[in-house]
Amino acid sequence: MMQQRNPEDAALRERARRVIPAGMYGHGNVAMLPEGYPQFFERGQGCRIVDVDGNEYIDFMCGYGPNLLGLGHPKVEEAADRQRRLGNCFNGPTARIVELAELYVETVRHADWALFAKNGTDVTTACVTIARAETGKRKVLVSGHAYHGAAPWCTPSSAGVVDGDRAHLIYYDYNDLASVEKGVAAAGDDLAAILTSPFKHDAFMDEELADPAFARGLRRICDDKGAALILDDVRAGFRLTVGGSWEPLGVDPDLTAMSKAIANGYPLAVVLGREGLRDATSRIYLTGSFWYSAVPMAAAIATLGVLREEDAIATMEAAGTRFRQGLEAQSVSHGLPIRQTGPVQLPMLLFENDPGFEKVRALAREAVLRGVYLHSFHNMFMCAAHGEQDIDEALERTDEAFACVRREFGG
Amino acid sequence: MMQQRNPEDAALRERARRVIPAGMYGHGNVAMLPEGYPQFFERGQGCRIVDVDGNEYIDFMCGYGPNLLGLGHPKVEEAADRQRRLGNCFNGPTARIVELAELYVETVRHADWALFAKNGTDVTTACVTIARAETGKRKVLVSGHAYHGAAPWCTPSSAGVVDGDRAHLIYYDYNDLASVEKGVAAAGDDLAAILTSPFKHDAFMDEELADPAFARGLRRICDDKGAALILDDVRAGFRLTVGGSWEPLGVDPDLTAMSKAIANGYPLAVVLGREGLRDATSRIYLTGSFWYSAVPMAAAIATLGVLREEDAIATMEAAGTRFRQGLEAQSVSHGLPIRQTGPVQLPMLLFENDPGFEKVRALAREAVLRGVYLHSFHNMFMCAAHGEQDIDEALERTDEAFACVRREFGG
Repeated sequence: MMQQRNPEDAALRERARRVIPAGMYGHGNVAMLPEGYPQFFERGQGCRIVDVDGNEYIDFMCGYGPNLLGLGHPKVEEAADRQRRLGNCFNGPTARIVELAELYVETVRHADWALFAKNGTDVTTACVTIARAETGKRKVLVSGHAYHGAAPWCTPSSAGVVDGDRAHLIYYDYNDLASVEKGVAAAGDDLAAILTSPFKHDAFMDEELADPAFARGLRRICDDKGAALILDDVRAGFRLTVGGSWEPLGVDPDLTAMSKAIANGYPLAVVLGREGLRDATSRIYLTGSFWYSAVPMAAAIATLGVLREEDAIATMEAAGTRFRQGLEAQSVSHGLPIRQTGPVQLPMLLFENDPGFEKVRALAREAVLRGVYLHSFHNMFMCAAHGEQDIDEALERTDEAFACVRREFGG
Repeated sequence: MMQQRNPEDAALRERARRVIPAGMYGHGNVAMLPEGYPQFFERGQGCRIVDVDGNEYIDFMCGYGPNLLGLGHPKVEEAADRQRRLGNCFNGPTARIVELAELYVETVRHADWALFAKNGTDVTTACVTIARAETGKRKVLVSGHAYHGAAPWCTPSSAGVVDGDRAHLIYYDYNDLASVEKGVAAAGDDLAAILTSPFKHDAFMDEELADPAFARGLRRICDDKGAALILDDVRAGFRLTVGGSWEPLGVDPDLTAMSKAIANGYPLAVVLGREGLRDATSRIYLTGSFWYSAVPMAAAIATLGVLREEDAIATMEAAGTRFRQGLEAQSVSHGLPIRQTGPVQLPMLLFENDPGFEKVRALAREAVLRGVYLHSFHNMFMCAAHGEQDIDEALERTDEAFACVRREFGG
């Protein structure tokens, strides 16, 4: 069946295997996803993506985050195109960098300054470096299974990682203050920072919202120890709130790392920091060939504008709620209990009684065959282009997919 | 005089100081350049850039490398725009990634595969990680003053860098095989790689072309020791040759890192590797939110096409030679001896009898006031849009700048 449905994809995979290690790499590699997932895409608009064989999908991954407002959003594209005609990459920035930094300082409560880069990894790494420069300390507490990037100090793979790369990391369990206290004790007088995410969004696991007492506890410990509290908001930033993902909790980090969605698909990342870390930051040589490029900054300014004017977060919340409720009803009607966790804008779906993840894989496999792009072990992403009709159409198809899972695994 | 000439720039700097640490960061910060350099740009075309006050410059920095064919090159922009209309950032790559990888494998002699990222730092770091994964060894030999990126393991700043970050680096002197042999001995049986640049292009120093015997020596040592030879071609890649910068020497590295110029200003970086390193590479989790984005890859395909069809390297060589000869004649006529080193496409200009770099700063300062954007301590970059008239116009102005230096410092 695959051969009929995805002949172009199969041909490209064959060519890719010759010139790209393992045929593809990183999260863009579909090798760990069920059969039937396309490896190569042709085009997209809004929340719909089309693979190289012309199969269309209602997309619930949104490029693993970057698609926040819908692919090809006219206001973002117009701003980016206007800047592109002026120019993108000079010997320094344009006025866009100042306008965008001012916008973030005004929007994100704890932010007194901003510094721009390209990758999420750039900015999580920069945050750790800034904390170490400011404190003169080395140890960084990191949540056990959390993903903070693909550099040797944080990559989930151990290949090519050497002892020095993680020499000063200490691991704690998310939402478990006692484990943090234990890590702090282990760090002794050498604690530079605690790195955390706004909620637990680790692969293959239920999501867990931050316990407010946990968040406040991290803040208190950092204050007591003179360490920096770093919020890795790369994945969730601007999907939950425009004020930084812990604003609703009333807990202000010292440093926030954001990327993914902030420019609606244009490559950009940002460190947002408090006044006290400004001097340390200016002592570090943070740079990249494309870090001053104007087009992604113009796109980011437009993205934040649309996010506010069109109440995009409420749209995503409504779409995510509709999708979650629909899936829950289908789970009940097919007698296949599921767990849907985390914020509805970044939902995680796993099955009960599915230790090997076979049921969720079967659901994703049947859904993708029917033009709904879910994920089988990673959180999904809603965008503001998910309309009620898109959700309802997706749910019609997932209902069939649930029926297939039921046939395969029983009730 | 500055206030009259750059009021917009001054106003933006004032705003930037509030919301960006030190007002700017990295190589995009003009704080170390002489007075009169604009911090903020408005637009550009070809080899001409215009600052926010409307002052135009003939540009010899080319965005510190990315501008290879001229800003706004129509064929590159057309290819990028066509891809942008289809879409850029999906849940995986488009066919562009395969087409581009095939193109590089066919173009760069030692390349059997390609893997794409965003920053130069991404790919130099990946090369080191790949070498360590393949060899199971840890030590990496690095040339003393060389710049290989801004991550903690390689940044020129020490702020925030901890002992583990550089625990397994050993330094050698470029073009000095004895120093390499000494480093190899120090590595013992733990040598993973030797990292080098195609020529010496360190800041504040004369450039030095690679001694062919040095390059061959590195190759032989790596073969003897089972270590990987990594060529950091981020800065020079595709300005000297389309075959990898050591192709003319007949020395093939195992891994090459390229970025900067390969997509004419669109953000892209690439690791090119030999067959033997393919498996190790596929064991490493190398990824980034924008690493599969199609627009920069479409731009890179067009860039390589133009580079070949329009014989752009020969154009840059001719322009660079014309510029160098003109500057040399001016140096003689004004009685101010200079040293011009390195390939003419990436020229370095320093003055004799100028230990504090005052003369070169004065030249750069007077040139920028006259609309010629040079650099006072970093190599410069030619692009294929530097026509004879641009060079001649630039030389008219540098002649005046030399006269100023002569008046200030004497003969």
